Amino acid sequence: MNYKMHLFVTGKVMIILGSLMAIPIVTGLFYQEADKVFIYIVTALVTILLGILMSIKLPVNSKIFLKDGCVITALSWVVMSVVGCIPFMLTGEIPNFTNALFETVSGFTTTGASILTEVESMSHTSLIWRSLTHWIGGMGVLVFLLAVVPMTGGTNMNLMKAESPGPSVGKLVPKVRATAKALYLIYLALTVIEIIVLICCGMPVFDSFCSAFGTAGTGGFGIKNDSFMSYSSLIQWVVTFFMILFGVNFNFYYLIVTKQIVKGFKMEEVRAYILIILGSVAVITVNIFSLYGNVKDALKHSAFQVATVITTTGFSSADFDTWPTLTKCILVMLMFVGACAGSTGGGIKVSRLIIKLKSFAKEIDSYIHPNNIKTIKMDGKPVDDGMVRSVSAYYFVFLVIFTVSLLIVSIEGHDLVTSFTAVAATINNIGPGLALVGPTANYSFMTGLSKWVLIFDMLAGRLELFPMLIFLYPGTYKKSLRSKISKLVR
Amino acid sequence: MNYKMHLFVTGKVMIILGSLMAIPIVTGLFYQEADKVFIYIVTALVTILLGILMSIKLPVNSKIFLKDGCVITALSWVVMSVVGCIPFMLTGEIPNFTNALFETVSGFTTTGASILTEVESMSHTSLIWRSLTHWIGGMGVLVFLLAVVPMTGGTNMNLMKAESPGPSVGKLVPKVRATAKALYLIYLALTVIEIIVLICCGMPVFDSFCSAFGTAGTGGFGIKNDSFMSYSSLIQWVVTFFMILFGVNFNFYYLIVTKQIVKGFKMEEVRAYILIILGSVAVITVNIFSLYGNVKDALKHSAFQVATVITTTGFSSADFDTWPTLTKCILVMLMFVGACAGSTGGGIKVSRLIIKLKSFAKEIDSYIHPNNIKTIKMDGKPVDDGMVRSVSAYYFVFLVIFTVSLLIVSIEGHDLVTSFTAVAATINNIGPGLALVGPTANYSFMTGLSKWVLIFDMLAGRLELFPMLIFLYPGTYKKSLRSKISKLVR
Repeated sequence: MNYKMHLFVTGKVMIILGSLMAIPIVTGLFYQEADKVFIYIVTALVTILLGILMSIKLPVNSKIFLKDGCVITALSWVVMSVVGCIPFMLTGEIPNFTNALFETVSGFTTTGASILTEVESMSHTSLIWRSLTHWIGGMGVLVFLLAVVPMTGGTNMNLMKAESPGPSVGKLVPKVRATAKALYLIYLALTVIEIIVLICCGMPVFDSFCSAFGTAGTGGFGIKNDSFMSYSSLIQWVVTFFMILFGVNFNFYYLIVTKQIVKGFKMEEVRAYILIILGSVAVITVNIFSLYGNVKDALKHSAFQVATVITTTGFSSADFDTWPTLTKCILVMLMFVGACAGSTGGGIKVSRLIIKLKSFAKEIDSYIHPNNIKTIKMDGKPVDDGMVRSVSAYYFVFLVIFTVSLLIVSIEGHDLVTSFTAVAATINNIGPGLALVGPTANYSFMTGLSKWVLIFDMLAGRLELFPMLIFLYPGTYKKSLRSKISKLVR
Repeated sequence: MNYKMHLFVTGKVMIILGSLMAIPIVTGLFYQEADKVFIYIVTALVTILLGILMSIKLPVNSKIFLKDGCVITALSWVVMSVVGCIPFMLTGEIPNFTNALFETVSGFTTTGASILTEVESMSHTSLIWRSLTHWIGGMGVLVFLLAVVPMTGGTNMNLMKAESPGPSVGKLVPKVRATAKALYLIYLALTVIEIIVLICCGMPVFDSFCSAFGTAGTGGFGIKNDSFMSYSSLIQWVVTFFMILFGVNFNFYYLIVTKQIVKGFKMEEVRAYILIILGSVAVITVNIFSLYGNVKDALKHSAFQVATVITTTGFSSADFDTWPTLTKCILVMLMFVGACAGSTGGGIKVSRLIIKLKSFAKEIDSYIHPNNIKTIKMDGKPVDDGMVRSVSAYYFVFLVIFTVSLLIVSIEGHDLVTSFTAVAATINNIGPGLALVGPTANYSFMTGLSKWVLIFDMLAGRLELFPMLIFLYPGTYKKSLRSKISKLVR
């Protein structure tokens, strides 16, 4: 383990985080919220100062292994969350530490599950910070770090691998730094476009910024108590469209930008993602038609909710807790499917589903044609066995974390649907679930224990399970006898 | 495909099934239910006659491949179910075909989900036939066939592999026939012991037979409307004990009988199974203590319900739908865990869980020690990669079937818990679920469509998914170009 690098990278992350507080500070100055601004300035300065002290010089040995990558990522996210929640506490807007941490983790992990019962009374300064956490967490702060800070060694891929969503971290271009830059440029460009479009559609400027941050990170914090229910149909459609865009694998945009359009549209994951959306919207529109009486509204609400759930954003334009059971089932399933790998969305990811479907087809085939050994392919390229095994392990770890969380949360004694969807909506980074944690409700009523479990689930879900587990697993920090022997042997 | 063998084996199965109707016939004669007896006699004779015609001589080529094994197994079970439901329809006790088939499939697959609202008004003849279906389905009719009918060729293992529960079909002894015999002898002996013990504990003889059949097959059909709620505590404890016994891997008993006691108690699956039971009973006892006010009753009901759910039997001594959420969560999870491989129980099976846990540990380890490649071991023996992959495929197929079934059942529009647990309780061959399909309720209210989906789920669950899928997959019956080529090449 390279502890010096852990300290160094965490320090850099703190500098970035502190600098990004400039945005709420500027906003606060504009809205003349002097007392809030003061708190954000102090927090930012202290954070940056500490960060500089921690990362004053690059360690001589800057090489990191995969397990370092995991630990650094998990550590950075924990530090980010703790630092990020300080302003909420100091401004007195979320005085309780557990609640403030829950809200901040929910922000960075792009979950969007809130403990606030009354969002509209928050200051503009804190509201924009809250939405900004989605934007920061969406693409990932370490990816940002890689894009802006020159670091030696090719092993930085391990940082990106640990933070980026999805089983296949596509290096867009051979160099990690260039890949990180390309990702952030696409991300920024799409966000700016959404802000402009929303303003053109008549949304207030402040709302446009917050909504775009929430959409881009597939986060889901609304700045209205009723999320998107009271905005115009046009705005709802625009947000639906952008939610779907941010759930697409960013490799797709890279291919489009570099004029490899045909290759882009041939991406199996993107096709499957679009098909799942179209199919779900169609079925739900028919299923809820009688509730709205006209195709236009049914289609609008159906599309909005499907987009918000599959991309794991978590906005809402209607209280889907009151919709029919079939629709609720589909939505709960989409919670687990999630968006594309390489997007800002959460969930299990469409590509994992495809890999599993293909390995299932292979298994069935081996019953019927035992002498033919097929290889699994994705976009025409063979998927190696290690990846298939890793995807299988992922599913199982997911199940274990889900099960244990559900057991602990159910100690509270709420109904099964509440407990189940609370865990589902946090581990998949969605936000609202059903019943007591439905779209018109929030998580404030839960006990501290449940909130801590859900905080863990949000982090584990965002970092795709393994980094958090490796971070917490004591064996990670021990030099095992075997590894010593294997070193001697080499 | 060896269609002649399909016909031959199905014929033999029909002969066995017709012969087993002797038991309800004798029972009916004893209780003087002449009209019912007449129907059973006619059904039995016609079935046996047809069976004889179908299997008049062993085909010259009696070799069967794995896919033949799957198709024969699925086909036999479908035929068994259709034949088995005829008496229910002809006696007028379950006049509707869908309902009669549901009840019979539920019997053979040892599910125990009933569509009967009023069990106690059934004739003794039909009640014992209903319970006997559990006993026949528990160990499997093809295993029985292998035990009694001499068949040439070593490929008969493929029949046993397709019908026996669990990922590892342990051949107890090198010869398939001897293994099948050993299994049935253990099964029969344990059943007889349970009948005797129950009679000694004061249970009426008829009830003892039915209950023992239901316990042995881990079925769950009760012959009282309130299942086991009104029997004495002693009887409830005896049934708890035997349910747990029938959920144990039968290899364990074989090792015990052949005096390899240490080896038996070292079986990882059996140990894990016992540990899961003890842990669950402890937590649930604490959780429901306040409902019963004394440890004795809380422990009794907790143990009974844990045993009934993990072994997928489905009896009930209390209405666990009214228990606290934590307990319900644990019970729903145990529904999925299931019993040991090589037992008569359903569910996913403890050994699959162990294999998955180990491959998960291996995956985590590969992050930390990338240069050490571990092999997964079970009871000291390495588990080959094919098995690990097959277990992974199993989980995924399970998920897909579960999801699709849930979607179709949820069209009915009942609450999520009802829809979810109805599918869970049938695909895992348990019987009762929660809410509208809870222990004091039944499945009669469901639509025909849902019942057919659940019938499929019961069969798929009992035959461990693949045989049913291969049976229904059109590609199975096509000679593929590839297999033709691979034949030419050889």
